[in-house]
Formats: sequence, structure tokens, C-alpha cells
Amino acid sequence: MFPDSPPASWPTHLAELWGNGIPLAAAMGVVIRRLDEEVLELVAPLGPNRNHMGSAFGGSLQSLATLAGWGVALMAAGDPDASHVVIRDAQMRFRVPVCGELVAAAAMPTPDAIAAFRAVLVGRGHARLTVPVTIRGPNDTVAARFVGEFVASVADS
Amino acid sequence: MFPDSPPASWPTHLAELWGNGIPLAAAMGVVIRRLDEEVLELVAPLGPNRNHMGSAFGGSLQSLATLAGWGVALMAAGDPDASHVVIRDAQMRFRVPVCGELVAAAAMPTPDAIAAFRAVLVGRGHARLTVPVTIRGPNDTVAARFVGEFVASVADS
Repeated sequence: MFPDSPPASWPTHLAELWGNGIPLAAAMGVVIRRLDEEVLELVAPLGPNRNHMGSAFGGSLQSLATLAGWGVALMAAGDPDASHVVIRDAQMRFRVPVCGELVAAAAMPTPDAIAAFRAVLVGRGHARLTVPVTIRGPNDTVAARFVGEFVASVADS
Repeated sequence: MFPDSPPASWPTHLAELWGNGIPLAAAMGVVIRRLDEEVLELVAPLGPNRNHMGSAFGGSLQSLATLAGWGVALMAAGDPDASHVVIRDAQMRFRVPVCGELVAAAAMPTPDAIAAFRAVLVGRGHARLTVPVTIRGPNDTVAARFVGEFVASVADS
């Protein structure tokens, strides 16, 4: 649980997971910009994520939002070596094109919500968490909204 | 319109669009396997699209499904130089992990549906098309389902 902020080791841990284990994250140039008790914010440059019209490719936006939501779900589950997290459902609404850096901000659950999620995970061996992610454009406008449902399972010991 | 099958130039045209204009498609290794009056089927190898657990990354599956649905919408709109197509909404339900080659099959609209879509596009200057995409796993099982809503607009002349 994060009474104040997530453990300082998480940014390094997530970056290693993505850097070593998810080639697409490396191809996209994903970087963690912010991680605290409120949000996990990821950014990626437009270059490798552009489409033929010069704006961000919809698949890149879905991928960035998925990584952000998945990161939040993994942190909410607690020990990354003791649980697996997979995505079950994804919904994304695209409002306006993103013509610069891609920014995805996944909302961190409240401490109470994290506690409830972990209680179900320990009690049943699996638990669901819904994570909203916002893609922002210039002047902090909302360019797209993503909602991911993630399922955590206790890993085989 | 496709009375029998899409024009023979479409596979080359789509491959060039993605190869030159969407770096992520190249990074994913996307290839068109089938294109006819029923389906646009795309495949991608697991290697560049894997996650840290060895199955397909959810973002790669969303990206592949988006490319397939977008290709169908662009073909349904007709002349690729006369219209733009963007994704407006994406929904994906993940059922089972994909542990081998990624395969996304986007259903081609019927000739009647294509005719209606083009009539609205010409009449209003823009039109929406919903495209279902299926991700198949081993033994032709359904591993995930995607539904994309795409908006075509008449390009500025």
C-alpha cells in the first residue's frame, strides 16, 4: 500500500520490465515522467509513433495507455514477483489528433481502493481493477480517454 | 465498390502506407496475409510483439486490430487520395493470451453496406463505419475481439 507515495524502486522496476520484456515499448520510446500517489505518467516522442498523416497512430496511443494502466494495476497488486497482471478489457475514445509528444496519465487508486483490491486478490487469488487513463494534447486539453480493466492473479509459488 | 473483390492494387497501397508512414507497423513486422471481399487479415510475429510473460503485448494486439479495421474503412471509403480515415472509438475484449503469431481478421462490409457508407460520405462530407476485428489463437479459437469505429472525411481538394 502507498500511504504517501509508491516505493522509490518502482520507476526502475517498470522501466526494466518494459525495456527488457516488451520490445514495442522500447520501439515507441516510452519514458516514465511522473510516478507518485496520484498518477503514473508516461511519455513517448511523436517520431516513432506517428501515422502517415503526421499525428499519433491510434495503436501507439492505445499501447501507451495500456502500459500506463497496467503499471498502475501491477503497483496496486503490490509485490511484482508475487502476482501477474493482464489486461481484460480496453476502451478508448479518440477526441482530437495528437500532433506532438504522446502523454498518458493513469490515475492511481486511492489507498482504500488499493487495500480493497489486495484483500480480494489475497482472498480469492485474483482481483479486477479498472484504471482510467487520460491522453493530453497541447494546452492540457484531453485528446483521448482510455479505460482498462486489469486482472491480477497470485503467481504460482 | 467491390462487386467481386477489392482492386488488386490495395495490398501494395496499404503496405506502402504502413511501411512508409507508420513506423510502429514496421517495428511490429505487420504483413497482409489475405485481402478479398470477405476479410482483411494481418499477421505479425510474436518476437517484436511479446510482453515480459512471453505472450502477445495487449498494445500490439490493439495496434494490429486498429490497422486492420482502419484498412477496411479506407478501402470502404474508396479512393485513398480523396478521403481521410481516423479512428474514433476502440473496444477490445481479451479472452486468452496469444502465445504465437498474432493474426487479426477485419470483416469487410457487404457491398450494400459499402454503397450506403459512400453515399453518406459523398452527401455529408463524412461518414462512420464500425468494423469488427477478430484475433485468433491456436486451432482457430477466438483469443480477442475488437470493435473499431472509424470516421471517413472527404479530403480537401
